[in-house]
Amino acid sequence: MDNNYQIVKRVSALIALSDQEFADFFPGELARELQSLLPDARRVRLPLADPADWTRLWQESSPELLISAWQTPSLNSSLSPEHLHGLRYVCHLAGTVRRLIPRELIANGLVVTNWGDSIAPTVAECALMLILMALRRASYWAVAMHRDGKWKDNGTMTESLIGRRVGLHGFGGIARSLVPMLRPFTNQIAAYSPHVPDAVFAQYDVRRVTTLQELFANSDVVVELAAATPANYHIVTESLLRAMPEGGVFVNVARGSVVDEAALIRVAREGRLQIALDVFETEPLPPDSPLRGLPNVTLLPHLGGPTRDRRRDSGALALRNIRAWLRGEPLEAVVTLEVYDRAT
Amino acid sequence: MDNNYQIVKRVSALIALSDQEFADFFPGELARELQSLLPDARRVRLPLADPADWTRLWQESSPELLISAWQTPSLNSSLSPEHLHGLRYVCHLAGTVRRLIPRELIANGLVVTNWGDSIAPTVAECALMLILMALRRASYWAVAMHRDGKWKDNGTMTESLIGRRVGLHGFGGIARSLVPMLRPFTNQIAAYSPHVPDAVFAQYDVRRVTTLQELFANSDVVVELAAATPANYHIVTESLLRAMPEGGVFVNVARGSVVDEAALIRVAREGRLQIALDVFETEPLPPDSPLRGLPNVTLLPHLGGPTRDRRRDSGALALRNIRAWLRGEPLEAVVTLEVYDRAT
Repeated sequence: MDNNYQIVKRVSALIALSDQEFADFFPGELARELQSLLPDARRVRLPLADPADWTRLWQESSPELLISAWQTPSLNSSLSPEHLHGLRYVCHLAGTVRRLIPRELIANGLVVTNWGDSIAPTVAECALMLILMALRRASYWAVAMHRDGKWKDNGTMTESLIGRRVGLHGFGGIARSLVPMLRPFTNQIAAYSPHVPDAVFAQYDVRRVTTLQELFANSDVVVELAAATPANYHIVTESLLRAMPEGGVFVNVARGSVVDEAALIRVAREGRLQIALDVFETEPLPPDSPLRGLPNVTLLPHLGGPTRDRRRDSGALALRNIRAWLRGEPLEAVVTLEVYDRAT
Repeated sequence: MDNNYQIVKRVSALIALSDQEFADFFPGELARELQSLLPDARRVRLPLADPADWTRLWQESSPELLISAWQTPSLNSSLSPEHLHGLRYVCHLAGTVRRLIPRELIANGLVVTNWGDSIAPTVAECALMLILMALRRASYWAVAMHRDGKWKDNGTMTESLIGRRVGLHGFGGIARSLVPMLRPFTNQIAAYSPHVPDAVFAQYDVRRVTTLQELFANSDVVVELAAATPANYHIVTESLLRAMPEGGVFVNVARGSVVDEAALIRVAREGRLQIALDVFETEPLPPDSPLRGLPNVTLLPHLGGPTRDRRRDSGALALRNIRAWLRGEPLEAVVTLEVYDRAT
């Protein structure tokens, strides 16, 4: 760990987290490092007993730096521009900040960072698990063994990832974490991502495909990793899903909106694909969703990442960013207006 | 593929498999290679319409070589020593041959091979999947999402393999296949296997531990890979399981008899460990087994390996062995009397 930092100047900081969030994001040594970086920081333990305390806190402390996560109250409702006047940087420990931060604050120069790619390894790990589960029918067997008293028979189908053709839709941080996890099983890895330079494909030794049609038609396993931009809304169509080979595996650990879920349900019901989903168009997934109960569908309740034990990776990124901000150096994982607008 | 073989002499061979077994073990090119190696082989399609045909077949063909798998009738019941007089080599495509071959045939010089370590990669893959599922609580969520209409809440626990200490009980073929699959997640890999030389540990960069107590006490994840020898019967005791750290993961893809299952059930019921099992003391697992229904237990019906699509690896090993046998060269995966006696 790099402890070679200098406090450029003392800043007023507000750490607005629940006790659980603080413990998960800044365990042990990370909490001590945060204390060293921001000796004057005020720590608020959420949730607040009285929501009006949120306004009072801002009046009292008028922080330049806010450290926030899921439990942090919005900067929108109860705070006036006057309260927020001194705020220069929000170091958000989770993903989207749309609930927390009004767009105009960023437009007016507020610096915001989030967990960025620090969660990529755990989401990639989730994708690998879902691939293996779909091939092995592990979700079917979890239900059949626990609830239905079953055992295998001569017709039981099991498949391996060894030697399979894997297609990645998207080639950002998660895909780049996933590639080395796939390597012990297969070298047949392709990706579709129009804006990523050829040099990155070469660096990861991943074959570039130039159309989604080609990706779906020539992959035994497709992993959905595309960003939930307006351009990607329902980009995975029924026609693409039907282009996959018989017995193919479709995994989504990106966002539900990327897939035409009604089409996915139609294809899932036919049983010719194995489908594994961590994300859905409507979350929480409605109790009566037709996806629930299908034997060829693996379901998780949006647990991709970060796992509880790896929230520390976001905490470590936050410490790097706070140190850089104190020194006036560039930050990682900055939530620009472009990032803000495409977040979901 | 090595097609540089010579038929030393024509031998009479009997291929006694079901159509499904033949297609799985010798798909495409492998079937053509088998045909080239054994042009005079007689192929019997199992199951036989009349069990008496088995005796008649041996009278007619008196094979020197038998290619067998799960569906092949026993050499025990309906065949006399006279029928088996010419038999010199049984190339068995599956694991244990105890059901198929009387011990005295091997004692009297019959050469037998089985699938050996050709299945190791798929069993290792199953172990990795079970580790990830246990950490992520994926079996719990499979049941909860499909049958109980649930979604996550603030208390939902998820964990990652990243940076975890993994302990392997056993360091044979499966463990050696598993190590590279674990590397993208962790370098903290230890193993306990008293008879494996230090050089092998060094080759795989795995730390040797000298007692099981040390392995269980200092691993976040323990993978059971020990052979089902008499010495290993119930070697995993309640005391070892209780030595694991809180929240630890115990995976068994070896054999049920290696673990004191009554003790495992007591520990499982307390919920402090995550447990993932592909094998059991009694198989099929009884419908009323207390393991069924526990939320911290992942269950599979002995599907470790090989998966259906990788039975071809056993077929490829069989072709190598048949070619070597025709040339009088040494064989792989030989079922010696020692192997025969410890098989389960």
